[in-house]
Amino acid sequence: MNLQNDLLLRAARGESVERTPVWLMRQAGRILPEYRAVRAGLSGFKELVKTPERACEVTIQPVDLLGVDAAIIFSDILVVPEAMGLPYELIEKTGPIFPETIRSSADLERLHIANPEEDLGYVLDAIRMTKRELGGRVPLIGFAGAPWTIFCYMTEGKGSKEWSLARKHLWQDPAMARTLLDAITESTIRYLKAQVAAGADLIQVFDSWAGVLSKELYDQFALEGLRKICEAITEVPVTVFAKGGGHFLDSLATLPCQTIGLDWTVDPRRAREVVGKNMTLQGNLDPSVLYASKDEIRRQTRSMLDRFDGQPHIANLGHGVYPDTDPENVKVFIETVKDYQPK
Amino acid sequence: MNLQNDLLLRAARGESVERTPVWLMRQAGRILPEYRAVRAGLSGFKELVKTPERACEVTIQPVDLLGVDAAIIFSDILVVPEAMGLPYELIEKTGPIFPETIRSSADLERLHIANPEEDLGYVLDAIRMTKRELGGRVPLIGFAGAPWTIFCYMTEGKGSKEWSLARKHLWQDPAMARTLLDAITESTIRYLKAQVAAGADLIQVFDSWAGVLSKELYDQFALEGLRKICEAITEVPVTVFAKGGGHFLDSLATLPCQTIGLDWTVDPRRAREVVGKNMTLQGNLDPSVLYASKDEIRRQTRSMLDRFDGQPHIANLGHGVYPDTDPENVKVFIETVKDYQPK
Repeated sequence: MNLQNDLLLRAARGESVERTPVWLMRQAGRILPEYRAVRAGLSGFKELVKTPERACEVTIQPVDLLGVDAAIIFSDILVVPEAMGLPYELIEKTGPIFPETIRSSADLERLHIANPEEDLGYVLDAIRMTKRELGGRVPLIGFAGAPWTIFCYMTEGKGSKEWSLARKHLWQDPAMARTLLDAITESTIRYLKAQVAAGADLIQVFDSWAGVLSKELYDQFALEGLRKICEAITEVPVTVFAKGGGHFLDSLATLPCQTIGLDWTVDPRRAREVVGKNMTLQGNLDPSVLYASKDEIRRQTRSMLDRFDGQPHIANLGHGVYPDTDPENVKVFIETVKDYQPK
Repeated sequence: MNLQNDLLLRAARGESVERTPVWLMRQAGRILPEYRAVRAGLSGFKELVKTPERACEVTIQPVDLLGVDAAIIFSDILVVPEAMGLPYELIEKTGPIFPETIRSSADLERLHIANPEEDLGYVLDAIRMTKRELGGRVPLIGFAGAPWTIFCYMTEGKGSKEWSLARKHLWQDPAMARTLLDAITESTIRYLKAQVAAGADLIQVFDSWAGVLSKELYDQFALEGLRKICEAITEVPVTVFAKGGGHFLDSLATLPCQTIGLDWTVDPRRAREVVGKNMTLQGNLDPSVLYASKDEIRRQTRSMLDRFDGQPHIANLGHGVYPDTDPENVKVFIETVKDYQPK
């Protein structure tokens, strides 16, 4: 099916576009009353993720209500460790908890390489359903967590600021760490290939906890999995977003992906110098700007767009939208991008 | 009283030193059995902070047991908001909680500028006592939180990963934010001057949550308070440590302080290029390295020291030592610094 709006895909491929495409990470998120209404009818976040009809519904909401140039399938990065044999629970206001964790090589025996059609069929069904419902209006983005970020959750078992336990394994049992990272990588490749087969038009890999690693450790442990993923996904463009990874942008620039996502601490002009002309950059408005007045949001958004110098760029926030953001302010951001005339 | 070991002070002033001085942030921390023994005899962390005899005891422990080149007074950055009228509680395994927070200009009326001798006499007593007990063996470091970091706690009321509520105030009520930041700055200056009068030989300002601000917001809201503090403390050297602040190192380099602390995500060679030759750099071994084998710790420590190129440098970790670190591994780090011969 031909896309009526393929701005995102053309920008990701570095082709010329009439205007900068725009979407939001965690876009339906918790900001839309229409999303909360769907959520209220279900037992929790996981039921929403596992019910393709509802996941499809909330995936399309921001396309209808906010006017974004892409949909991103509503799901969770933690479905992969669960598909590998490590189930998780989501505790309201606390976050994810893994009752069992991986702390030694012996623990690895509990795991298997994910079989997407069997273990993650609900996501693939949601993708197929969403593609049908979208009817080619905008591209659909599929996604997964980066191996390092998934490793963090599988070893620590819950959220952490510093992930010191996950990092400890890299020093104390690098062989176990590599085996686990490889298993996550292989599972993720199978999962993302299945997402593409189900209809995903672009893949984004989220390395949410990249920022706790030194450049040396990132290069030694995290980069290889990302490289394998980028090499394996050849049918559609791939975006890598390593939050807090401004200090190893030069490493990310070596990945065979089309787009690098930037958080709001990275200067787009420095990023362009580091990655060169052949990659698309995505980002990077500080999500807290959406708390400002509408005039200030317009000013800050235009200033952000100026700093990308009109070169291959996909507009986005520098991270997920905060849950108490006014949807009207999100619309101002989106409309400002759409109306922008590069200098 | 003359110091028998003034390496830290000379390095901070950019003078030549026989070898690189070394200390650890959060050094007594929770790693020493001798610290835990003192702690076990008290009701909690706050009682330890508020009992000068015990605070003095645990301040000196790492000098005796680990051989560091400086002591840092055992205290907490949150004593300042408490002295301004906003008490806090420390909940085991959860962290600090402020039952009341500042959410509007009206809330500011609850606060007053801290009067150190009255509100923080227990810290000053601990400093006087520690200076006496140290007998000039090593310098004593005093410290406070940076205004932005204290602002985060006073507005959010508890720890946070993104501090989106604190950042929201910067956009929605910048006048209130500036008034609060100014009050914190003024309180901090009085507190730090009192610490110096009580005997502190060097002051470190911790901007623990610097990393959540874009460079623009940091320049607009956080930098001014730091500048005023640095300008006010003229009797002893000042170190500014802004964790996660690698993206506005050029702003920090404009501060009239002697030393800039680096976390482990900042490349010391890039830092030297940005700050120039006239400042001392402090840091920045990844604290997770102390989980490695002793040989690996030696290798990583020497590699870190090499990257500072022997220029004015105070060796430290890039952040606080993790609680489950083996004290023997800390000793290997310290001894490696002491034995280091610059290339």
